[in-house]
Amino acid sequence: MHYITAGESHGPQLTGIIEGIPAGLTIDIEKINQALASRQGGYGRGNRQKIEHDQVEIVGGLRHGVTLGSPLALIVKNRDHAHWSEIMNPTSPATPANTVRRVEHPRPGHADLVGGMKYRHRDLRNVLERSSARETAMRVAIGNICEQLLAALDIQIIGYVQQVGPVKIDTEPSQALTVPQIQKQVAANDLRILNQDKVTLIHDLIDRTKREGDTLGGVIRVVVENVPAGLGSYISWDTKLDAKLAGAVMGVNAIKGVSFGDGFKDAASLGSQVMDEINYDSTKGFSRLTNHLGGFEGGMTNGMPIIINAAMKPIPTLYKPLQTVDVNTKEPLKANVERSDTTAIVPASIVVENVVAIELAKAITDAFESSNIGRLKDEINRYRQELVEY
Amino acid sequence: MHYITAGESHGPQLTGIIEGIPAGLTIDIEKINQALASRQGGYGRGNRQKIEHDQVEIVGGLRHGVTLGSPLALIVKNRDHAHWSEIMNPTSPATPANTVRRVEHPRPGHADLVGGMKYRHRDLRNVLERSSARETAMRVAIGNICEQLLAALDIQIIGYVQQVGPVKIDTEPSQALTVPQIQKQVAANDLRILNQDKVTLIHDLIDRTKREGDTLGGVIRVVVENVPAGLGSYISWDTKLDAKLAGAVMGVNAIKGVSFGDGFKDAASLGSQVMDEINYDSTKGFSRLTNHLGGFEGGMTNGMPIIINAAMKPIPTLYKPLQTVDVNTKEPLKANVERSDTTAIVPASIVVENVVAIELAKAITDAFESSNIGRLKDEINRYRQELVEY
Amino acid sequence: MHYITAGESHGPQLTGIIEGIPAGLTIDIEKINQALASRQGGYGRGNRQKIEHDQVEIVGGLRHGVTLGSPLALIVKNRDHAHWSEIMNPTSPATPANTVRRVEHPRPGHADLVGGMKYRHRDLRNVLERSSARETAMRVAIGNICEQLLAALDIQIIGYVQQVGPVKIDTEPSQALTVPQIQKQVAANDLRILNQDKVTLIHDLIDRTKREGDTLGGVIRVVVENVPAGLGSYISWDTKLDAKLAGAVMGVNAIKGVSFGDGFKDAASLGSQVMDEINYDSTKGFSRLTNHLGGFEGGMTNGMPIIINAAMKPIPTLYKPLQTVDVNTKEPLKANVERSDTTAIVPASIVVENVVAIELAKAITDAFESSNIGRLKDEINRYRQELVEY
Amino acid sequence: MHYITAGESHGPQLTGIIEGIPAGLTIDIEKINQALASRQGGYGRGNRQKIEHDQVEIVGGLRHGVTLGSPLALIVKNRDHAHWSEIMNPTSPATPANTVRRVEHPRPGHADLVGGMKYRHRDLRNVLERSSARETAMRVAIGNICEQLLAALDIQIIGYVQQVGPVKIDTEPSQALTVPQIQKQVAANDLRILNQDKVTLIHDLIDRTKREGDTLGGVIRVVVENVPAGLGSYISWDTKLDAKLAGAVMGVNAIKGVSFGDGFKDAASLGSQVMDEINYDSTKGFSRLTNHLGGFEGGMTNGMPIIINAAMKPIPTLYKPLQTVDVNTKEPLKANVERSDTTAIVPASIVVENVVAIELAKAITDAFESSNIGRLKDEINRYRQELVEY
Repeated sequence: MHYITAGESHGPQLTGIIEGIPAGLTIDIEKINQALASRQGGYGRGNRQKIEHDQVEIVGGLRHGVTLGSPLALIVKNRDHAHWSEIMNPTSPATPANTVRRVEHPRPGHADLVGGMKYRHRDLRNVLERSSARETAMRVAIGNICEQLLAALDIQIIGYVQQVGPVKIDTEPSQALTVPQIQKQVAANDLRILNQDKVTLIHDLIDRTKREGDTLGGVIRVVVENVPAGLGSYISWDTKLDAKLAGAVMGVNAIKGVSFGDGFKDAASLGSQVMDEINYDSTKGFSRLTNHLGGFEGGMTNGMPIIINAAMKPIPTLYKPLQTVDVNTKEPLKANVERSDTTAIVPASIVVENVVAIELAKAITDAFESSNIGRLKDEINRYRQELVEY
Repeated sequence: MHYITAGESHGPQLTGIIEGIPAGLTIDIEKINQALASRQGGYGRGNRQKIEHDQVEIVGGLRHGVTLGSPLALIVKNRDHAHWSEIMNPTSPATPANTVRRVEHPRPGHADLVGGMKYRHRDLRNVLERSSARETAMRVAIGNICEQLLAALDIQIIGYVQQVGPVKIDTEPSQALTVPQIQKQVAANDLRILNQDKVTLIHDLIDRTKREGDTLGGVIRVVVENVPAGLGSYISWDTKLDAKLAGAVMGVNAIKGVSFGDGFKDAASLGSQVMDEINYDSTKGFSRLTNHLGGFEGGMTNGMPIIINAAMKPIPTLYKPLQTVDVNTKEPLKANVERSDTTAIVPASIVVENVVAIELAKAITDAFESSNIGRLKDEINRYRQELVEY
Repeated sequence: MHYITAGESHGPQLTGIIEGIPAGLTIDIEKINQALASRQGGYGRGNRQKIEHDQVEIVGGLRHGVTLGSPLALIVKNRDHAHWSEIMNPTSPATPANTVRRVEHPRPGHADLVGGMKYRHRDLRNVLERSSARETAMRVAIGNICEQLLAALDIQIIGYVQQVGPVKIDTEPSQALTVPQIQKQVAANDLRILNQDKVTLIHDLIDRTKREGDTLGGVIRVVVENVPAGLGSYISWDTKLDAKLAGAVMGVNAIKGVSFGDGFKDAASLGSQVMDEINYDSTKGFSRLTNHLGGFEGGMTNGMPIIINAAMKPIPTLYKPLQTVDVNTKEPLKANVERSDTTAIVPASIVVENVVAIELAKAITDAFESSNIGRLKDEINRYRQELVEY
Repeated sequence: MHYITAGESHGPQLTGIIEGIPAGLTIDIEKINQALASRQGGYGRGNRQKIEHDQVEIVGGLRHGVTLGSPLALIVKNRDHAHWSEIMNPTSPATPANTVRRVEHPRPGHADLVGGMKYRHRDLRNVLERSSARETAMRVAIGNICEQLLAALDIQIIGYVQQVGPVKIDTEPSQALTVPQIQKQVAANDLRILNQDKVTLIHDLIDRTKREGDTLGGVIRVVVENVPAGLGSYISWDTKLDAKLAGAVMGVNAIKGVSFGDGFKDAASLGSQVMDEINYDSTKGFSRLTNHLGGFEGGMTNGMPIIINAAMKPIPTLYKPLQTVDVNTKEPLKANVERSDTTAIVPASIVVENVVAIELAKAITDAFESSNIGRLKDEINRYRQELVEY
């Protein structure tokens, strides 16, 4: 399984192709659109999200709502393109009239400057249109298809917010809750957090930060339940599934750290505190008494819930602009201010959830014969039963 | 560029092949052996390391000490194999005499149990012989060749220890030191730490932990200087170099978290605190006033030092054994105790340094025409000059 | 560089994404459309081609006609979809009304039967809609972009017809002609052949074959000039560029054989007859006196024109239908007859030309730093000069 | 599954690593050595083969003769290295004494000249030591392991000689014979041909060619039986298994053409002549009445025997040397004569057989869950039964 996306933030559309989804899977388009809406929501967003109301179209690989086994082609139109149809026109030649809104003052923390140097762009809009997090809408659409695949195999996944700026959501360890319980709790507020008592505090933090023209990051957690043991392998560095997941999560815009289970806390603990002792039950087979390691041993899933944490840096586009340099005159000045959010931690939690779903769907379809969803289900069930009987 | 390793912990040898190292690079074998020796050192190691004195042999791709451009084949013999020549014999059939020392009590925190289930092994030695960190010796050998390649391009790298168990090495931010300065300071103690004042404290911690039959993890930092801006790209999720580095670092045994620059601390900060403002100097071109982001923007190197942090969990093999279950009788009991270290944070810092070196060498040789080191040097120099003149 | 396509033959559109085209390349959309029109032409085609008049749209990666360096997204609408909007509707659920025109009699020589078995389809339309050569329209669109990239590097390419059914185009060896000369000659007839004298003969053959309800294959030749020496490598089996080209050409629908230079004729010759002796000229450097090997030695381009031959089987959809079996009743009967061509050798010559262009563009952009077309041109020119001075 | 090889022709050894062979497979080392011996045999070989008597050692991934699931490391020592231990010494610095036997007169038809230009070698021995067909010994060793895997799944394979120089082995179509029958017949002579009556004729041809200082190529055929239908896919150009096989076969030294089934003959035939009509049998399921297409439809195996043809050019190293140019003086002169064979068509047939085995083993292990050979067997059997019941 592999996928690719294309499209600029204010271009006509985002386009995605994913190959390797089994034939015979019924796709619920509305679920994809709900995921896209979730990505556009959350407290602390700017105005762009009010413009877009993303809707996916599937124009390849699907017939009568069921996958064909051929590559799926997805489209998400950019409604905002109407206002940029000349400036971001793919084919009409450049003229003075359509090359306005040039970006020549690279924003610190963004791809602008290095992108310009690497690709020899002088109008840094040519960089930021692609490096923008707008692209993650397509990753969510593709990820939701993968979530539907995982659901067909009884695997549940949720991404939510564990920390906003300095405020940690102090609550009982989330792994004590099932994924459906987490889903329900985080749906009860616009911060996607487990602890309702902290909502007002964080709203206030975001409001204050916004007034000051500043931005916030946070920490995201993803939990996945009922993943079969034995995905990934210890045999080579690049067959470890936790390593692949780490790469995919770090590949989400603004993510600067990723960890499994207790993560960096493990580093400060004693061995006797962090190992998950092994238990056996004749009907369920082997399990672990705890889950400090977040569902991975030796780069393989061990049957416990997967727990991934991701650190998101604050959005670098500030209304309180930072020092930069004009790429032409080389004069120091203040960075351009593009329309921006105060914090994108809520949508980022959706995006991280979805890239995790993609990697897990990939791990499963790569490991098992996955031409058809029915055959795949049978195989996975037999494999699960075999593990119980080990 | 790509590489693969093979070999079991007590088998005859580790074998590695790396393809994509340019022709014409002079390889200093002694440097590789020094790196292998460093991986075997450090305070807190067990007895195995006194048995092995790793020496690399190169049996392909090298002639008269110079690379040919063809794949390099490396060998590191396992001296300990002499004691295991029957038990780990590749070809002689299994007999009662050579199938002793079976492992049937999987150790929590290791690959043992899941590996047995996945590959249908009943003697879990068949798992642990490969999942053992012994394999990282070959990654270090290959990594040192990559470091020699990077050095030819004036890129310096160092991995060292930032935290042992709960003890953080409080010192001025390491990025204020040059890589040669860091190399010198961390070579002055057997903990590979910057702050000599903490050596006794940490020695005591390790000694006490050892007496209690427990183990320690820690945090590793890698710093890389003089990397050209523009390696990696924002254009697709899987072209981001920080994502690839995160995957490679997470692929090191016992690593549970990875971050760039300020990492998880960024998540708690305001945007105005963590962005690295842009500066310009007519002779050096663009730079950043700070380096909170650890040398990456938009998944690309930005010319600032790369700073990577990795969290290592404590070694799961305890002398104070953990609960497990016999895979045959299903009786609960205590895990096997294999020969082990109290902490492997020092060697892990070498390993992480080396896998970072590999990924950077890969990023450069994949991006630039790299058949010959002389041509590659010329290209990189022209590219660097172009960036200064942007 | 890599690409993927999606879309069914009677679905709404073909979609393609290609990543790795350098920034700064001006794309001539009309050239792409001309290539698409060429793929739809040629003597011996059926009626489908009169329905489609393919036009490409680029909806990502292009701005004002110039590449951005980000992935290019291409669309070619299926005009015929209007007649199939219910039967091939991606999302509306299956009903008796929209599941007509089922295919349950697999056609020999097509993917129908095996595709049904592999993906568990009972309506084999779910197979043939994707396995249809309709998909090659997108490969041509992507290939033409690659041809425009090659043209910017002064590399010319042409694919044409060497044999139709049993009729070989006996003419002087094509490698004696330059690519522009070949382009001019083959454009003078609707068979894309070099020898005008054979046009009537082949027209008659096609007409007669059509009357008999039968079909014809043929042999295609692709010639590429001015490719720098040293693309590909002998160092590993999977770095050989001729091997990659062979895979790409064999990946074109209906191609059953591929060879380089004299190909299978080489197998019957003496070594002294087929080796291309080496010559030297102080201004041009090294060259070969002949080109029996088709521009490759040791899996590398050697600077001589690349010559590739491809054998195309006759189109398997006959009006004189073949024996098959109903997949439900298991009764023997005659295969369905879908709308078809008598020969598709002319369009296939376009498709093969284009997949060769893609692989060569990939070989160049993978080998050289290719973020920007201007930088790439400079590098290639320096490299070419270096080879002359070797 | 993937593999890589390393090692120079006169270096200490060939090294290979293959990852992805299932755990639990018993490896017969003697079978590998027999395959290595076959590669060294055949009428028309030179003296080098009398020096080498290749023996494989497995130094990783194998324990007590059974695969562990971890990467297998293989070694084949070069016995001839004893005579080259200084000239081809990996590590001792270059001196006048050990840099004799330089190659500065590139041989037409070899990688010598282009390899020198690409990698900036002035002693072309640095090229030919790796581009030599010596490397194929390791591909045979790895291929034989794959053949043992295929045999465990009841898949048989044979490669043999169909044509030597201009002499075709006129016999009944080989697909009428089973693989074991072919194996028996071709083992009865030193030309690996089916028709014993042609042995003397071809011996004479080879002897005469040798006296004249010339060389011969030929055509190889590989037949594989009992491959499950549905390997590979029509869904994308790079998922077609025939395309991958074509690449692997073209990646064998001196191969200039590859085809399936009737191959280039198909191009001259009518559609009604070359399509394989579909048949059904209630116990065996679907089959084809003929096999013109060589076991592939739509890039997928169709359950019929796979038939691959490969055209080998004559060995370019002639005792009747060809014109070349000294790379230093640029003077025209005659090419160096290295020790050589008159024809290598027999060993090449072994090599092509083995690379086909590798690709098929890869196709199967990539498609099915292949951690353990027992589980894989069960899956394949269930899959085969499902296809019968389609």
